[in-house]
Amino acid sequence: MVSPNWIAVDWGTTRLRVWAMNDSEVLENRSSDKGMGSLDRDGFEPALLELVEDWLGDRPVPVIACGMVGARTGWVEAEYRPTPCTPLDPLRATRPVVRDPRLDVHILPGLSQIDPPDVLRGEETQIAGFIAQNPDFQGTLCLPGTHCKWVIISNGQVEGFHTFMTGEVYALLSRQSVLRLTIGDAKPDLPGFLEASAQAATNADMAAAGLFPLRAAALLNGMTPEQGAGRLSGLLIGSELAAAHPLWHGRRVIIIGAPELSALYAQALTQAGADAHQMDGGELVLAGLTAAASALTRTP
Amino acid sequence: MVSPNWIAVDWGTTRLRVWAMNDSEVLENRSSDKGMGSLDRDGFEPALLELVEDWLGDRPVPVIACGMVGARTGWVEAEYRPTPCTPLDPLRATRPVVRDPRLDVHILPGLSQIDPPDVLRGEETQIAGFIAQNPDFQGTLCLPGTHCKWVIISNGQVEGFHTFMTGEVYALLSRQSVLRLTIGDAKPDLPGFLEASAQAATNADMAAAGLFPLRAAALLNGMTPEQGAGRLSGLLIGSELAAAHPLWHGRRVIIIGAPELSALYAQALTQAGADAHQMDGGELVLAGLTAAASALTRTP
Repeated sequence: MVSPNWIAVDWGTTRLRVWAMNDSEVLENRSSDKGMGSLDRDGFEPALLELVEDWLGDRPVPVIACGMVGARTGWVEAEYRPTPCTPLDPLRATRPVVRDPRLDVHILPGLSQIDPPDVLRGEETQIAGFIAQNPDFQGTLCLPGTHCKWVIISNGQVEGFHTFMTGEVYALLSRQSVLRLTIGDAKPDLPGFLEASAQAATNADMAAAGLFPLRAAALLNGMTPEQGAGRLSGLLIGSELAAAHPLWHGRRVIIIGAPELSALYAQALTQAGADAHQMDGGELVLAGLTAAASALTRTP
Repeated sequence: MVSPNWIAVDWGTTRLRVWAMNDSEVLENRSSDKGMGSLDRDGFEPALLELVEDWLGDRPVPVIACGMVGARTGWVEAEYRPTPCTPLDPLRATRPVVRDPRLDVHILPGLSQIDPPDVLRGEETQIAGFIAQNPDFQGTLCLPGTHCKWVIISNGQVEGFHTFMTGEVYALLSRQSVLRLTIGDAKPDLPGFLEASAQAATNADMAAAGLFPLRAAALLNGMTPEQGAGRLSGLLIGSELAAAHPLWHGRRVIIIGAPELSALYAQALTQAGADAHQMDGGELVLAGLTAAASALTRTP
C-alpha cells in the first residue's frame, strides 16, 4: 500500500510519467502514453487519476508537474518567467481547477527570454535538478533533442538560452524531403558526420548549400544511406555549433540528452575546440521536481 | 482533326503536359495529373496514349519528352550529361520500348556536375528554350521552386549549377514543424521578408539560429502568421543568397519561375546588390522541346 506525501509528474507532449514520493524517496513510478499532445482540456485530470488514484488517501496530496502540460494548448497555461532568473520558482506555479479534492496540482512555470525571443517548458526542471546536484557549476548546459536548448548557467541562475530546431529539421529532411530517398532511417556514419560538422562549423553556408548535393551524391557516386545520414546530421549540427559559438566558446559545456545524439554533439563540440562533457541526465527531472516540492513545503 | 508532325511532352512529378505540334506551331495542348510520381513503370505508355491517341495517324510520330519521366523511378532512366556542356543533346535521348508502334518516344537527358555533386532533369529543356530565345546571354539563370536551380550560362553552354532545397525546406518547416502553429499557409509579409533576408544574407548563422525564435515571437510578442511567414521565407532565401553568392555576384541574373516566389527572389537579390530581373518563363519548356525536335529532324 503506497502512500506518498507528494506526487512528481513529468508531463510532456507524448508521455506522462509519475512518481509516488515520500520527501526525496521514490516509492513507486508509473507512466502512460497520455501525453499533452493527445489530450483535450478535459482529459488531463482523468489521465492523471488513471495512474495515481490508488496512491491517494483522505487528504489532498501535492502534485508537482512540469512540461508541456502547462502549454497554451495543455491543461492550463502556466506562465513563462523572464530570464535571467533561477530555473524554478514553485510559488509561481499555476493551479488548475480539479474535480477530485484529493489532488492539489501545481504546474511549474517555464522560462522566457526577450532578445532573441525564446521559450522553454520542462527543461527548467531538468536545469533545476542539475543545479541542485551541482550547485557551483558555471558554464553551459546543452540539451539536445527534437529542439536543442543551450542554457548559460551562472551563480545558480539561468543567464540566457537559445533553442535550435536541429533535431526536428533532421527528422523532416531525412524522412519527408527528397532526401528520404537517400537517407530515411539510416544511422549516421561517424566519419561522414565529423567531416560535415567540421565543414559547417567553419562555413555556415554549407547548411543551405550542402543539402541537395547529398541526393546527387547518392545518384552519381553511390553514397550510402549511412554516409548521407552522417553528412546531413553533421551539416545541421555543425551549423548549429557555428551559430551557438558565443554560448559555448570559453565555457565548460555539459551535454545532457539521449546517449546517441548526445555523443554526436560531444564529438562535434570537442572537434570544434570546446570543453564539452556528456552526462547521464536520466533523473534530473525528478531531482528538479523534488527541489520544487521541498521549496513548497518549506513555505508557511 | 489534329495531325501533328511531332508531339512535345513535359512530364514532371505531378503533371503531364502535351502539345500537338506542326514544326514550331502549336496545334493543340492538353494535360493530366498523371505525373511520374503517381505511375509505375507500366503506367507511362497508357497515360501518354490517354492524352494523344486521337492525334496519331498511320505512321510513327516523334514524341520528345523531358522531366522526371526520365528519372530512375520513371518510365526509363535517361542519362545525365556532365557539365560544362550545351543544355540539350537530343541525339543522346533514351528511347523506351513501346507497345504502340505509332509512338517514337525520345526522353531527353538531364545534366550532372561532379563537384559539388548535383543533378537536374527538366530544367535543361527550359534552359535550352531560354538560350534559343536569347542566344547571346551571358550570366546566371535562377529557377526558384521546390528546389531552386542556379545555372551559369556562358557562350550557349551550362558552365555549372547548384541546387538549393529552399522551397521544400520552407514547406516542411511552415506546415509540419512546430512552426506550423505560428505560420501554416499564411502569405509572407514583405517587410518581414526583406528584413530577414538581409539579416541572413549577411549572417549565415541566422538560418539555424533564427528558426525557433519565430515560434517564441508568436507566443511572447503576438507576431502574426504573415510576419512569421515573411521572416521564415526571408531567413531561408537570404541564407541561400549568401551561399549562392559566387553564382550571382558580378553577373546578370534572370529569375524564371512562379511569379510570386520569383518576385521574392528578385527583391531579395536586388536588396543584396545583384543585377537581377524577373522573366515570364511560361513557355520556355516548349521552346526547348521545339529546339530539340528541330535538331532531331535536321539529323540524317
